[in-house]
Amino acid sequence: MTDARSVPPLDAGAETPGAAALPAAFARLADIGHSPGDGVMRLTASATDGAARRALAAWMEGAGARMAHDGIGNQFACFDWAGAGAPWVLAGSHLDAQPNGGRFDGVLGVVAAGCAALTLAAERAAGRLAPRANLAVVNWTNEEGARFQPSLIGSTVFAGALPLAAGLACRDRNGVSLGEALRTIGYGSPAGVVPPHPRAYVELHVEQGRRLEATAGSIGAVEGTWAARKMQVSWEGRAAHTGPTPMAERRDALLAAARAIAGFEDAVARSWPELHRSAARLEVEPNSPNVVVRRATVWFELRHPDRARLIAAGDAVREVFEQAASATGTRLEIASDATRAAASMDAGLVARVEATARACGLLPLRMASVAGHDAVALQNAGIPSALVLVASTGGIAHHPDEFTAPADMQAGLAVLTALLRGLITDAAGPGRA
Amino acid sequence: MTDARSVPPLDAGAETPGAAALPAAFARLADIGHSPGDGVMRLTASATDGAARRALAAWMEGAGARMAHDGIGNQFACFDWAGAGAPWVLAGSHLDAQPNGGRFDGVLGVVAAGCAALTLAAERAAGRLAPRANLAVVNWTNEEGARFQPSLIGSTVFAGALPLAAGLACRDRNGVSLGEALRTIGYGSPAGVVPPHPRAYVELHVEQGRRLEATAGSIGAVEGTWAARKMQVSWEGRAAHTGPTPMAERRDALLAAARAIAGFEDAVARSWPELHRSAARLEVEPNSPNVVVRRATVWFELRHPDRARLIAAGDAVREVFEQAASATGTRLEIASDATRAAASMDAGLVARVEATARACGLLPLRMASVAGHDAVALQNAGIPSALVLVASTGGIAHHPDEFTAPADMQAGLAVLTALLRGLITDAAGPGRA
Repeated sequence: MTDARSVPPLDAGAETPGAAALPAAFARLADIGHSPGDGVMRLTASATDGAARRALAAWMEGAGARMAHDGIGNQFACFDWAGAGAPWVLAGSHLDAQPNGGRFDGVLGVVAAGCAALTLAAERAAGRLAPRANLAVVNWTNEEGARFQPSLIGSTVFAGALPLAAGLACRDRNGVSLGEALRTIGYGSPAGVVPPHPRAYVELHVEQGRRLEATAGSIGAVEGTWAARKMQVSWEGRAAHTGPTPMAERRDALLAAARAIAGFEDAVARSWPELHRSAARLEVEPNSPNVVVRRATVWFELRHPDRARLIAAGDAVREVFEQAASATGTRLEIASDATRAAASMDAGLVARVEATARACGLLPLRMASVAGHDAVALQNAGIPSALVLVASTGGIAHHPDEFTAPADMQAGLAVLTALLRGLITDAAGPGRA
Repeated sequence: MTDARSVPPLDAGAETPGAAALPAAFARLADIGHSPGDGVMRLTASATDGAARRALAAWMEGAGARMAHDGIGNQFACFDWAGAGAPWVLAGSHLDAQPNGGRFDGVLGVVAAGCAALTLAAERAAGRLAPRANLAVVNWTNEEGARFQPSLIGSTVFAGALPLAAGLACRDRNGVSLGEALRTIGYGSPAGVVPPHPRAYVELHVEQGRRLEATAGSIGAVEGTWAARKMQVSWEGRAAHTGPTPMAERRDALLAAARAIAGFEDAVARSWPELHRSAARLEVEPNSPNVVVRRATVWFELRHPDRARLIAAGDAVREVFEQAASATGTRLEIASDATRAAASMDAGLVARVEATARACGLLPLRMASVAGHDAVALQNAGIPSALVLVASTGGIAHHPDEFTAPADMQAGLAVLTALLRGLITDAAGPGRA
């Protein structure tokens, strides 16, 4: 295998084609769906997502890639450099965004993978690179879980951990399925030959925390992620006029949800203050000022590295949910209660990220990711995966103020390019640090 | 004036044209926008509202009416029986409905007014009625306040208590103004000559309570309505990733709203348990499971006959709202805080409703209405108005199970017809019981 230390050090003066292309390519994709306050509105399978996909395809086809997509709409820019029987290396992230979300989350990983491919293609054309594996730049469908729940649908289906039909059947709040939505943007049926399970997947992402920002010249090598417990909980009451209906006869589902959200926070803060926790989506029916709420549904999350604490805290909050139901005469329904295990990323790739970062003149920091990412979904399904993080100002995420400095983006691209150079020229797959 | 006691007693055997028409006319209008569980989905200025308006117009034109509508879309079926200079009497209610609301609320008042007009037209054609006032059947725009807030927009604009431009500028949750929505159904510009302020307005409505149901053969003569205090309150936090963002840095607007909704109920139940109270609409932004809620807006209501208690309780809950903001690091915004005074209906008309009901063989019960109605908006603006109630099974309102028995509908129609007969043949307006 290529020794990471043999990678040329990062030299901002001697730009590679990928480094030169990065600013404009990033701006072009990140700006599709620009929303107030420098954010983006690019929900999965929306018109803006379709526009971003077409822009990615046009750019990659211009670089010599063969585009393909699978049944869940994952988009692959394939560089068949090593022939049909050769193994594959994948790199990318996602182009969907949170509502009025940040410009860097996801887009950076896709654009950087594309830029890395430009550089590697140039090296190959110049006879300086002889790939033993094919490379594909990938855009995973619905990473964010904003329009469709759960998150990470595209990568999880690709990895085989979620049936395609189940992914396509997920519905947004208007009842539109992911399958229907993908059809509206021209990604409803698979097209082209999609790469098989790769020997490795590499994802560059913004940190969503402040550790890298505090250490100049650092780069994150994610060792693992926190566990998460996510619950979708409804209270079913009864619609009634908010005026004349006697108070004793009301069964108010919004009051139940409010008591549950406050009680959830109080119970967890009291006994497990170290857990990250949220209730961030609430659907109310009929949501008219003059009708007692018939049904309220809340999406709760608990996150911590220690799964046992999620079990204990989650079981305690289920009692809070019951109390909210009995206090309001509503009926509790827990539609889903799923715990995602803490993940360990591929140890060989973590070491390789560290070595590559050092070779690029950067300081690698081993760290955990609180959030889920496509790399985690693939790793959990047995595909050796690496998650490389770059600094994000203030750790701001899922907000229009999200920002990563150009120099940090270039540092991340340099590491990604060097990693991919090694992975596609290795005689065997990763796992040997 | 016509003595109400001279009205022929109700005889179900000898049907008038209006009584004969009632079942089919009611079914035809009430079924437009039929929704699950025998409810209706007919929000203001939706396609179904447009269909209901067209059905009303076709029916009334068939009965000889001249249709007109004003700038806010109030629809008038005008019977110009007494000439251009004569006074007017109006009768009606509204065809808009709550989301998946009941079939009777509003529709009964419009259809019964139309049926009463059929009967009076037949009497006039037969030379048995010589009207001194013109009659119009009216369908008021956006009574419910479901799609557009506030409620009672059409009648309030007609009465002169809300400027037309302000009514048209009200926006639904998608940002569509009432003016724009009315244009989409063909009611964006006034058409025809609309009646001036009438000498009297009469509205038949279902009770939304159980008092009439408990006394067979009774009919409600509304003396007044409760006061109401309505507040639209927002908490402004900050969007952030629900995963990695440290708990101490979160400013969660949904947590603030939840604490406020629970605290509102607790504070009012403790000190003013006699108040009717609700929080029934909640808007959450961005409402994605993985983004800490940036902004939450809640519509609160307090109702009681005694305005002083609404003042005291409302001021106390404003402190609750402040506490919810400070506990969550969010910023409180009270967009509106409006108190609607308790209304007294026209005393002469109340007495006339009583006398008319007795003449029809029914037992009139004086009562208060908790809910607002178009008749209240007109009365408050100086137009003598009567609100006549018929029994509603179980007092169910704003729910698909809302039900009024055919016999009760006919009893209400008989009283309405007799009332209108008197009002259009009187030498002067009401007010002389």
